[in-house]
Amino acid sequence: MLDPLPLAQALIRCASVTPADAGALDVLEAALRGLGFTTQRLRFGGPPDGPVDNLFARAGTGAPHFAFAGHSDVVPAGAGWSVDPFAAIVDQGVLIGRGANDMKGALAAMVAAAGAHVARGAPGSLSFIITGDEEGPATFGTDPLLDWMVANGHRPDHCLVGEPTSARVLGDMVKIGRRGSLNCWVTVNGAQGHVAYPARADNPVTRLVRIADRLKARVLDDGNDWFDASNLEVTDLSVGNPTTNLIPAQAALRLNIRFNSEHRGSDLQRWIEGVVAEEAPLAEVVTRISGEAFITEPCGFTALVADAVAAVTGETPVLSTTGGTSDARFIRRLCPVVEFGLPGATMHKVDESVSIADLSALAATYDLILRRYFA
Amino acid sequence: MLDPLPLAQALIRCASVTPADAGALDVLEAALRGLGFTTQRLRFGGPPDGPVDNLFARAGTGAPHFAFAGHSDVVPAGAGWSVDPFAAIVDQGVLIGRGANDMKGALAAMVAAAGAHVARGAPGSLSFIITGDEEGPATFGTDPLLDWMVANGHRPDHCLVGEPTSARVLGDMVKIGRRGSLNCWVTVNGAQGHVAYPARADNPVTRLVRIADRLKARVLDDGNDWFDASNLEVTDLSVGNPTTNLIPAQAALRLNIRFNSEHRGSDLQRWIEGVVAEEAPLAEVVTRISGEAFITEPCGFTALVADAVAAVTGETPVLSTTGGTSDARFIRRLCPVVEFGLPGATMHKVDESVSIADLSALAATYDLILRRYFA
Ligand SMILES: [Zn+2]
Ligand SMILES: [Zn+2]
Repeated sequence: MLDPLPLAQALIRCASVTPADAGALDVLEAALRGLGFTTQRLRFGGPPDGPVDNLFARAGTGAPHFAFAGHSDVVPAGAGWSVDPFAAIVDQGVLIGRGANDMKGALAAMVAAAGAHVARGAPGSLSFIITGDEEGPATFGTDPLLDWMVANGHRPDHCLVGEPTSARVLGDMVKIGRRGSLNCWVTVNGAQGHVAYPARADNPVTRLVRIADRLKARVLDDGNDWFDASNLEVTDLSVGNPTTNLIPAQAALRLNIRFNSEHRGSDLQRWIEGVVAEEAPLAEVVTRISGEAFITEPCGFTALVADAVAAVTGETPVLSTTGGTSDARFIRRLCPVVEFGLPGATMHKVDESVSIADLSALAATYDLILRRYFA
Repeated sequence: MLDPLPLAQALIRCASVTPADAGALDVLEAALRGLGFTTQRLRFGGPPDGPVDNLFARAGTGAPHFAFAGHSDVVPAGAGWSVDPFAAIVDQGVLIGRGANDMKGALAAMVAAAGAHVARGAPGSLSFIITGDEEGPATFGTDPLLDWMVANGHRPDHCLVGEPTSARVLGDMVKIGRRGSLNCWVTVNGAQGHVAYPARADNPVTRLVRIADRLKARVLDDGNDWFDASNLEVTDLSVGNPTTNLIPAQAALRLNIRFNSEHRGSDLQRWIEGVVAEEAPLAEVVTRISGEAFITEPCGFTALVADAVAAVTGETPVLSTTGGTSDARFIRRLCPVVEFGLPGATMHKVDESVSIADLSALAATYDLILRRYFA
């Protein structure tokens, strides 16, 4: 099997901080074409969230159709690194650089496994679903790429996303679902006035605080077989009134709900709107549902992935739905999707890194998954 | 009796926007010395709230000792005036200028009445308690001036403050007390974290919102014979978290309580601290009590003032405790204090003004109060 390290380094050396691509998709595309993949570059959207460059690559035309999915963009490096974050330096068996962990290391491991797969002359199809915008708004990334795939006869049967899902050590966790996420902005308008004459004013803070307290007080659920309890957090409050003797005209909050499969985003939106309407009929509510909760219930495919992980790493992976969102929230509408990747301890952090040993073991795991899948 | 208009104009032409004096106290001092008053300039404090220039003037040494009190500073003019705010223009029987209403017009009316008083050779003492900082922090104004007066044998028996107390027309309202005022800042510290992992964070907003809702929910009282109900308003909320998926580390609120004589500021402070301690033991609470509630219960002195107001203006004044605070909150620890002045419709506003008729009637009212007081 190909060594994934040189490709991981080449990818890291492209400073593809969202929305920049910096040649990262070219590097990946060239590597896949070299293995015999047919590739397509898909550019979607316009300002302000686009255009976004994406890559679809496929080897073979038959069934079954297995897809790897991932992203070539990275979050900003930030300050405080001990090395150049885009130099891809290897030090004492560790590759250091922005994206080493999330998720250029995994992309390289996928390509290594794909090379072995192609070399075996296996039946069926293997494809890559790669976006240049997962860390950003993600509006013109995986979501429209999937639409394009469906429209062009590329619907996969199963998909593996390479996000860093492992917790402490490689292989201890596989993700089989994700919670949904909803952001909501509530703005209450009142009537400004002097605090000494409250009857002539209408303090929006009073209503806003009541809304926030009511929303937070509800127990959304107690979790279920596959998910932790849903949770709401008010993440911002703003009034911006510098004057001690003034009742302000406006007050606003922002909240986020991470919700499990007991809820749909639209139901939560209606509930919020209902509470707000009771406490502040004239308030404005804006809701953005980033993704619905989903679960790929344990089945043959999840077992295949988990068993391959265990075989290579010696760990028995927990089947988890914890953590943030990923592009799996889009893919799940096409096919069962499981996520497995590196331990995420350094993702999005200073001196992001992956050990060469983990990188090789991840490639070997992806390889074993492909061998068993296409067996 | 002297015409109060020229002195009112001379005072307005000094742009004594707090903390500036711009010669206003000199003008007033010269006028009083011209009437035979002994004057003292008292400068108190240092940066940032000082130094502040104040004026004490007294005519006579015997009892009874009646004091006029007021301030020579004004709030900023702001934009949008139809005339120069410091030109003291008279147009169609109306004097226009910053301070015409609050309260250089009243100072001129007091001086006019004082001139007649001195000319009568009345017994007892008449004094002026004038500060250059009532509109600002007021730390180094009337409060230490009163201490100086007590230490130097100038304790008055009764005091009349010339703030604009009338509502619609001159004479419809006399103030015999003021509510107390308290500002309080509550800062809740939590633990920052990703919204997807709430167990690893501690959202200070949850606690802050509960504190605000609990504080607002309490009915402080139902008012009493002389006061409206006490009232609490949360006047600001701040978190300042731009990131939708982040639980913030800190959240803060500011509140104001206008409280009547059923409460003392320190009791309210303890109550707030108790609620905060229950909901957020590590929160910081800073309280500033601007003044305690006080009442000069109707007595011979309040009746004397109200009757004189009625005799001159034809209005039956309401004895009120509404509105903001004034320096009467300090004076009341020395002697009974009543407030009577112009209709406040234009105070602190663009094109602040006083009608020449009201200015003359106010001087006549002050004159009648002095005549009856010293009779
Ligand atoms: Zn990622
Ligand atoms: Zn005033």
